[in-house]
Amino acid sequence: MTDKLEQKSANRCHGGWVKRFSHYSNTLDCEMVFGIFLPPQVEQGPVPVLWWLSGLTCNDENFMQKAGAQKMAAELGIAIVCPDTSPRGTDLPGEHDSFDFGSGAGFYLNARRAPWSQHYKMYDYVTEELPALVREHFPVSEREAISGHSMGGHGALVCALRQPGRYASVSAFAPVTNPVDCPWGEKAFSNYLGDDRSEWAEWDACELILAGKSKQGLLVDQGEADNFLDEQLKPGHLEKACHLQGVPLELRRQPGYDHSYFFIATFIDDHLKYHAEHLFAS
Amino acid sequence: MTDKLEQKSANRCHGGWVKRFSHYSNTLDCEMVFGIFLPPQVEQGPVPVLWWLSGLTCNDENFMQKAGAQKMAAELGIAIVCPDTSPRGTDLPGEHDSFDFGSGAGFYLNARRAPWSQHYKMYDYVTEELPALVREHFPVSEREAISGHSMGGHGALVCALRQPGRYASVSAFAPVTNPVDCPWGEKAFSNYLGDDRSEWAEWDACELILAGKSKQGLLVDQGEADNFLDEQLKPGHLEKACHLQGVPLELRRQPGYDHSYFFIATFIDDHLKYHAEHLFAS
Repeated sequence: MTDKLEQKSANRCHGGWVKRFSHYSNTLDCEMVFGIFLPPQVEQGPVPVLWWLSGLTCNDENFMQKAGAQKMAAELGIAIVCPDTSPRGTDLPGEHDSFDFGSGAGFYLNARRAPWSQHYKMYDYVTEELPALVREHFPVSEREAISGHSMGGHGALVCALRQPGRYASVSAFAPVTNPVDCPWGEKAFSNYLGDDRSEWAEWDACELILAGKSKQGLLVDQGEADNFLDEQLKPGHLEKACHLQGVPLELRRQPGYDHSYFFIATFIDDHLKYHAEHLFAS
Repeated sequence: MTDKLEQKSANRCHGGWVKRFSHYSNTLDCEMVFGIFLPPQVEQGPVPVLWWLSGLTCNDENFMQKAGAQKMAAELGIAIVCPDTSPRGTDLPGEHDSFDFGSGAGFYLNARRAPWSQHYKMYDYVTEELPALVREHFPVSEREAISGHSMGGHGALVCALRQPGRYASVSAFAPVTNPVDCPWGEKAFSNYLGDDRSEWAEWDACELILAGKSKQGLLVDQGEADNFLDEQLKPGHLEKACHLQGVPLELRRQPGYDHSYFFIATFIDDHLKYHAEHLFAS
């Protein structure tokens, strides 16, 4: 049991700091790295946190380097924490063989099947262990919001839907909305959770909404030129589930935009302002 | 002789497009790739161009992915072109052995020594061939400005100083200001140009200023926590040369900032606004 952080880098950015830390995760039973942006306002006192969950093949760095979020986050006074996308440093059989399963593809769930269940508990990591660690070491408040991209968009929606009332707001970019019904999700869920599909629903945004788990509003941006739109992301499924359950969904279909960080960079300021409205609401 | 472009990628970004193209460069005698950001205003007519010259180890992608410049460029209506930092696909003896010479380290000069002189003519490439190609294929005007980082900051200053009146404005981030008097410059110049140091001066910003080549104002940002500050960058040399020759220099020393793209991302909007003031001046 340790809650020690080792600082790997620190870069001044927009009057605040982008920092990376490694630590031993008890939840994941391996060494992990995360990134944090601390806005200049931390010098005056605790700031709220936006959790950013990245997509397949990403790690803690992609968002910090490519989204261009720090300028607006510094203006608004919001810290951003970027966890990695899977356990690291383990070498389970087949773990590094494909981009959509294993390393870089933790899917923000708690695996039940061996050997994955020993390490792949990304849900507990991003909702429990890492938040506790961050609150222990940085001047952040209890107020938190969550967002993410693709697999991380799925993660953000699922984290918020499973814990109604926890996050002030939730948003997503091109999320995998219905993993039980797309190739990425079916591959990951069958390996992490087993073949009993009835156990998959608790990790699926559409299923959680249809089960009435939460009525919290959702902001989702989806590029219409996204290569994964029809086969993997299926925003129409989310739209239908929200409509059936009366969940307020702002689904913005963005013509011409694809699945890349250029898409995220274009609309991240809108999401940050959306989260600020909720994080700073009295 | 060919001026054909092959599109490698196109990503919608901030209402415009980030695109990458490969082409055969006659100047460099090899296949090259460049990136271009076209702001939404190109739909109404030609827009001015900012040339961005990147630093050691970079290619055409670093700035486009990490600087977060597209939002402001889209607002202002400025295209940005990012050339690569050296010839590519050649295999000269020792070309790929070090980060500060050869591939990724063209230093934006025209080499005189064999075997480098066959390919390493980055000055002619970024000031002649590429601008002609870009004007042929994209809706850009004759108005141009230039900026860059580190080795590319050196490049931007030298391009502007060698052609007074050509660029509406010039700026730099952490430029190598006096390459004839620092390890990176001495290594590169002796290999590319030969041992006669009298021939180095025409590729050195401080020397060009001291020779009275141009009185154009310069905007320079320099992080005070930059690891390369004292040994390689030497902003004091630039300050002294500008002072002696009455060249208006706005040298902004930024406390706590380092040499990274987080530093560039923090101040790029200031530079874009500076260039816009000059590019759109009547």
